[in-house]
Amino acid sequence: MSRRKKSHQGHGTANRPRLWGRHAVAAALDNPNRRVLKAWATRDAASFMQFPPEVAVTLAEAPDLGRLVPSDAPHQGVVIEVEPLEDAWLDGILTEAPERAVLLVLDQVTDPHNVGAILRSAAAFGAIGIVTQDRHSPPESGVVAKAASGALERLPWARVVNLARALEEIGDAGFWRIGLAGDADTDLKDALGPQRVALVLGAEGPGLRHNTREHCDSLARLPISDTVESLNVSNAAAVALYAATAG
Amino acid sequence: MSRRKKSHQGHGTANRPRLWGRHAVAAALDNPNRRVLKAWATRDAASFMQFPPEVAVTLAEAPDLGRLVPSDAPHQGVVIEVEPLEDAWLDGILTEAPERAVLLVLDQVTDPHNVGAILRSAAAFGAIGIVTQDRHSPPESGVVAKAASGALERLPWARVVNLARALEEIGDAGFWRIGLAGDADTDLKDALGPQRVALVLGAEGPGLRHNTREHCDSLARLPISDTVESLNVSNAAAVALYAATAG
Repeated sequence: MSRRKKSHQGHGTANRPRLWGRHAVAAALDNPNRRVLKAWATRDAASFMQFPPEVAVTLAEAPDLGRLVPSDAPHQGVVIEVEPLEDAWLDGILTEAPERAVLLVLDQVTDPHNVGAILRSAAAFGAIGIVTQDRHSPPESGVVAKAASGALERLPWARVVNLARALEEIGDAGFWRIGLAGDADTDLKDALGPQRVALVLGAEGPGLRHNTREHCDSLARLPISDTVESLNVSNAAAVALYAATAG
Repeated sequence: MSRRKKSHQGHGTANRPRLWGRHAVAAALDNPNRRVLKAWATRDAASFMQFPPEVAVTLAEAPDLGRLVPSDAPHQGVVIEVEPLEDAWLDGILTEAPERAVLLVLDQVTDPHNVGAILRSAAAFGAIGIVTQDRHSPPESGVVAKAASGALERLPWARVVNLARALEEIGDAGFWRIGLAGDADTDLKDALGPQRVALVLGAEGPGLRHNTREHCDSLARLPISDTVESLNVSNAAAVALYAATAG
């Protein structure tokens, strides 16, 4: 019953998330690994969204679409209901990593807008994937997908049971694990070397958990003013990714 | 009547915005230029928020505070009603600029979460202020203040009537005006020189308006993958600020 209620409030369910917005939906339609179950679109959006023939599209007015998604969600005339993607395997990501590679590891970052924006930045800067702890990360959802602007479909995302153990595997695969921490003495730029890098970020406020810090090779900080405690976590991730790939 | 209704929905009014969250409120209380009209707090929050004696605090339970702010706003036990800050004058910001300085100019970035996060990053990377066009930027609000995490109180924010004219003044003050544009040929790193810099960012999607581009000395792009159209605007601002100050 509660699942049905949730669905009627416009969120879809964890088993069948609804995605909306033109970039997010176009990327889902382009993704051969994504199964689209239902689709709704305004006449206008249906005309240029290039739905494949096997997807039945229900034409609807914009206000009707508004009732399929959370209130105020910017659906841009198109909503789809999908099956969640298969999780990526950390093993696979590590095995296929090129000699120079950046991997992003999130420790209890739960806000779906932030995680979505981080996926987008990670794809933009060519990260090979992101790793989160299953119990402390948001499920696939329309909010994540919209903020990711297509990157949810393209960036490998491994959800692991135990983040400390995952960090051990990542270290064994030759990644230098750098934990971002405001109290670190080293500037991120100085912590980066020629090798593969895993950037490990914690939630705003609590930051990295003790056990996560213990599993990093080095702790580093972004060069920000003492007057500001921290950056928004997605902004911190974007800056760290830039520093690691182009800075 | 409509103003009263808006106030009852937890937003305050444009004349008397409500701020919430511990960082945002603590920064407002610390700001000698901020007039606090009312305050509500849980007993717990009141005990450590260090309200000055002239501010009368109404003790309330968390659910009551929830009704003073937009739904789901993370008030963290404290809400204040304030007078908006006096706008900073662009003239003043430019006159007081040190020899090396970074100024941020936003062209029609309207989302309050993004503008708040941009204020936070701008303060973090030591920008001397932000400039927006009055008609196309969000008013001071609890959402902006919460996302800015205190920076709304500290970073000079000039709201100008005419952005093109403001860019002329900024150029006359010796700032090299770099417009961020995905279609530019130059990498931002290569566009930066030793002089003062104004970073000009447009909204996601439309980007910089034609007339804004015309008033830049150079257009530059962030080094992102072709598979991703753009970054979230607050992430782009953070990366650009990092590149201009520390990269």
